[in-house]
Amino acid sequence: MADNSKTEDAASDSVEAAKGTGDKKEKLADQVMQNPQVLAALQERLDNAPHTPSSYIETLPKAVKRRIDALKQLQVKCAHIEAKFYEEVHDLERKYAALYQPLFDKRRDFITGGAEPTEAEAEWHSENEEEEKLAGDVKNKVVIEEKEAGAAEETNPKGIPDFWFTIFRNVDMLSELVQEYDEPILKHLQDIKVKFSEPGQPMSFTLEFYFEPNDYFTNSILTKTYKMKSEPDKTDPFSFEGPEIVDCEGCTIDWKKGKNVTVKTIKKKQKHKGRGTVRTITKQVPNDSFFNFFSPIKVSGDGESLDEDSECTLAIDFEVGHFFRERIVPRAVLYFTGEAIEDDDNVCILLRLS
Amino acid sequence: MADNSKTEDAASDSVEAAKGTGDKKEKLADQVMQNPQVLAALQERLDNAPHTPSSYIETLPKAVKRRIDALKQLQVKCAHIEAKFYEEVHDLERKYAALYQPLFDKRRDFITGGAEPTEAEAEWHSENEEEEKLAGDVKNKVVIEEKEAGAAEETNPKGIPDFWFTIFRNVDMLSELVQEYDEPILKHLQDIKVKFSEPGQPMSFTLEFYFEPNDYFTNSILTKTYKMKSEPDKTDPFSFEGPEIVDCEGCTIDWKKGKNVTVKTIKKKQKHKGRGTVRTITKQVPNDSFFNFFSPIKVSGDGESLDEDSECTLAIDFEVGHFFRERIVPRAVLYFTGEAIEDDDNVCILLRLS
Repeated sequence: MADNSKTEDAASDSVEAAKGTGDKKEKLADQVMQNPQVLAALQERLDNAPHTPSSYIETLPKAVKRRIDALKQLQVKCAHIEAKFYEEVHDLERKYAALYQPLFDKRRDFITGGAEPTEAEAEWHSENEEEEKLAGDVKNKVVIEEKEAGAAEETNPKGIPDFWFTIFRNVDMLSELVQEYDEPILKHLQDIKVKFSEPGQPMSFTLEFYFEPNDYFTNSILTKTYKMKSEPDKTDPFSFEGPEIVDCEGCTIDWKKGKNVTVKTIKKKQKHKGRGTVRTITKQVPNDSFFNFFSPIKVSGDGESLDEDSECTLAIDFEVGHFFRERIVPRAVLYFTGEAIEDDDNVCILLRLS
Repeated sequence: MADNSKTEDAASDSVEAAKGTGDKKEKLADQVMQNPQVLAALQERLDNAPHTPSSYIETLPKAVKRRIDALKQLQVKCAHIEAKFYEEVHDLERKYAALYQPLFDKRRDFITGGAEPTEAEAEWHSENEEEEKLAGDVKNKVVIEEKEAGAAEETNPKGIPDFWFTIFRNVDMLSELVQEYDEPILKHLQDIKVKFSEPGQPMSFTLEFYFEPNDYFTNSILTKTYKMKSEPDKTDPFSFEGPEIVDCEGCTIDWKKGKNVTVKTIKKKQKHKGRGTVRTITKQVPNDSFFNFFSPIKVSGDGESLDEDSECTLAIDFEVGHFFRERIVPRAVLYFTGEAIEDDDNVCILLRLS
């Protein structure tokens, strides 16, 4: 679980995405790694470890073992160089975030209706159009398009209604967290930004959720910060694979009166000790909601003392934060149209096969 | 198969490895993606595609569709910025390769016996030792160790015998390629280096296999170069996930007379047309061997005209080249001792479950 309760630095992972089928594969693997049956078998295998090449090492002369120890020492040095490499990649991520931002701001303006794309900005040929152009019956197509348009254009809402909410609905990892009563709130979500820690600061990233004024809370921005660690573990340096999310922090949501969906009020009968009189008291208890995302479990100092449920909840939280940063914010439109989702679907059958 | 026939740039992937269980996951996924049953189901699913959110898009007013097209255009711009990012990561990889090299050279010297580690260089405490220290019976332990050593020290071979050959045996992906008659040749392998393309040159990396003088071929270095592409595809920009291996090139092996294991001589009876006399001719035909790694299939210009077998062979070749660069060369000692292999094993059960 330990490994699973950490998620790679999305900075690194965006590079991981460099793999042709990398992202698909990673999600596939993530899901497999979260399959309890799989984890059980994995644990079992780990417990009664198989005959490994290491037993062959035991048979080697001491002088040779000594040279192998020297190689291990070199390997630890490599791990520390690697850590520096990942820090520089993180700096690169920060540099490029600034290059993406103007495009993301334009995106926000088109979504919220703050700006209308020019003819040039809106020019796009769908694959279908391409095919039909090749098929040569373009004029015909155009006519049909205009007919449809005529009907459609009767309505012209502001920007792209429910853009982010639709993404929450389209992406399983998110829709699983969203309760029915969260939906009207998420319809007010207007933008999501990723902010990186400043150079020299401890490595982290913050997700900023921008909301238009609404009846539920007074915050205009809800934030979730993920703290990362990018150094080899002293007790197990060879396990170092680069930055990992190791902790996260939410924010206080200033709910308007009676609008807090993260708690529910239950009535409870209470019997008075002395006189046997019974009175009914009301009590607030936690309630499932996406907005619990902003009050995550605290990672304890030693990192050991979390029970397995909490470990698991945290693991999922890290995965979600990572997914926002890594996939959703950079490619929002593809999760809105579903073009990015089809990959996920394919991953899903792969898993259904197992 | 197309996606599968490309392997991510290892530079990017070393960063992918930043994921806690990333490498494990990736290998797991690689193997799943190569499972024919899985691929079949995937294909089927792709063929009769499910009801995707994109059908919802069709119902939107034209004005909204127009804004979505604008977002898509912005997304393509992002993909081109992303390509630049990956180029800079590749530069970082090149920079760090120079930092690792002195450690790798020391490694080579300890392996070949070119140098003997000093006391300080060979200092290493295994986990067992640690535990026993904690258990407090250190002296006891030392005594035992010296006894064992006494026996072992009778032999003191040069360096670490069969270091690289043992890795070939330990790593399934490689041992599958190695034939019995390849083994005595691989025992002469003394080092493997990764060389990056120069700045400004087309992105590529070369694996250099260093051999000591041997009875099989006269080359002292065998090379395999992997060419990469790091730009969004014009026809499908959204599929861009970073640099991919797109082609590779081997080298000519100057086999000594009768030593070429990549061909075998077969006898063939031939009947003379006119007189019915039969004569036996000998013919050379290709032979399975790891050393075919150095004469890979050529990727055709359009990339389409390869049959599926060749596609698949190439896909595996790319995976192997990537694995050498990404895991084996940077962490050789862990593949020699098996510390890195256990991960692979665990991945294997994950698959056996499916």
